[in-house]
Amino acid sequence: MVIDDFYSIGRISGVKEAALGFFDSGVGGLTVVRAVMDLLPGEDVIYLGDTARLPYGSKSPETIRQFTEEDVGFLLGKGVKAIVVACNTATAHALPGFWESCPVPIMGVIEPGVEAALADGEAERIGIIATRGTIGSHAYQHALATRNTGLMIHGVATPLLVPLIEENWIDEEVTKEILRKYLEPLMAKGIDTLMLACTHYPLLVPVLREVLPEGVRLIDSATTCAEHLQRMLEAKNLLRKGAGEGNLEIYLTDLSEQFEDLARRFLKRSPGRVRRAVVSKI
Amino acid sequence: MVIDDFYSIGRISGVKEAALGFFDSGVGGLTVVRAVMDLLPGEDVIYLGDTARLPYGSKSPETIRQFTEEDVGFLLGKGVKAIVVACNTATAHALPGFWESCPVPIMGVIEPGVEAALADGEAERIGIIATRGTIGSHAYQHALATRNTGLMIHGVATPLLVPLIEENWIDEEVTKEILRKYLEPLMAKGIDTLMLACTHYPLLVPVLREVLPEGVRLIDSATTCAEHLQRMLEAKNLLRKGAGEGNLEIYLTDLSEQFEDLARRFLKRSPGRVRRAVVSKI
Repeated sequence: MVIDDFYSIGRISGVKEAALGFFDSGVGGLTVVRAVMDLLPGEDVIYLGDTARLPYGSKSPETIRQFTEEDVGFLLGKGVKAIVVACNTATAHALPGFWESCPVPIMGVIEPGVEAALADGEAERIGIIATRGTIGSHAYQHALATRNTGLMIHGVATPLLVPLIEENWIDEEVTKEILRKYLEPLMAKGIDTLMLACTHYPLLVPVLREVLPEGVRLIDSATTCAEHLQRMLEAKNLLRKGAGEGNLEIYLTDLSEQFEDLARRFLKRSPGRVRRAVVSKI
Repeated sequence: MVIDDFYSIGRISGVKEAALGFFDSGVGGLTVVRAVMDLLPGEDVIYLGDTARLPYGSKSPETIRQFTEEDVGFLLGKGVKAIVVACNTATAHALPGFWESCPVPIMGVIEPGVEAALADGEAERIGIIATRGTIGSHAYQHALATRNTGLMIHGVATPLLVPLIEENWIDEEVTKEILRKYLEPLMAKGIDTLMLACTHYPLLVPVLREVLPEGVRLIDSATTCAEHLQRMLEAKNLLRKGAGEGNLEIYLTDLSEQFEDLARRFLKRSPGRVRRAVVSKI
């Protein structure tokens, strides 16, 4: 599937009126959608969750690039005016390949987080928690280090956090113990900033505040991404001006019973009717 | 991909000499392979791990059936003499559709476990731990109840166990706490038998023995499946007679760095050279 094929249908006439497209391997990206709907309530949103092939976090860069190409192609086919890669792993491994070839503006979750972490110039020791794929890509470490060479940066892969969140064990004592165990090496380095480099992790913010020493700043992918998207749409004159509440359309590659409960927790509202999507052309 | 297409190539001339085919969504099925290699060391083994789309346990029956059809097709294309569905979720949701259409003998992991659990006639209160997909399918509950209507059967979905095993946190205190929490409702019912209905779980046997009261029998998918396979091959006159050690060929749909470490822990030997497989035709 060649992305250029979609150039003609990706651009529709009343382009400001077109929807924003988001994708993630599963439900995690809905934390980004929620933040965007809070900040830009008039925008329509089309969300694709590649639930048939989730998670992306443990898979190889080659496979993630192929999945991303198919996800982007699906959203372009829906005529979106801009695309948010609402998945840290896909942003890390695949987004750079789309900067030039994508016919609509496309952004990921890494740049917004990195910008927010460095915005006030006070961060010196930055910890990053994420999936194995995101940590292994060194995308955050690289993006931080190219902006500020004086930083101490420490990444830890925390693959148990997504299953704990999806199991809804956020308030359990074992979750705190697992967090303490994962964060121990970061605490030992005296981090002042912790980047939650996975779109599931905003749900952990309250328990992270309990477990972390006071004064450690938390930077998540959801709110930082919404603010960055607003600036990008303004700069490209793509913000929708009309009043009224935007629509949310959710497509999933696998419809499982568990999804609606999860989506409600991630969105803090009903996901509405969910449609089945076929994205793979392999 | 129609399974019947493979009839001609699935059967090769010296059929006893052909390899046994196994598949799973990931590495879990290697516990079954290990048990089979211990019991039937002369057999060649071809193993397919659908690592690009793992896990199957949280996905819908429809999607699991489609993946299973593609996995079976891949193994038939390799000319195997028999197929073991070394994945509880795929056995539960998809195997019944293959009994008639598969051109070579095919078996799953549920029947062997159920037979072993009921073999001595002493089981009365049976607990089952498995992925959400396997528990939700009621395949174990149904298979047990149709053999013995007097049983008390209690299933619990334990989705955190696979990530804990893959993270190699088996000996950590949090793993024991999570097991205690998951097993609490089963203990309250006074189970005498616990079925480990996921091919990852044999690695938990030592810690389960610590956590469970003495006298609770553990039935796992690996050893029971190997014994059942031996009986099936004998009955169909497909056992390889020659001396010498069989070969192991592993194919994965995604090659990740983590695989080799995991495979070594599951197989208790080196996985050798691993090849990339393409199975999806959607």
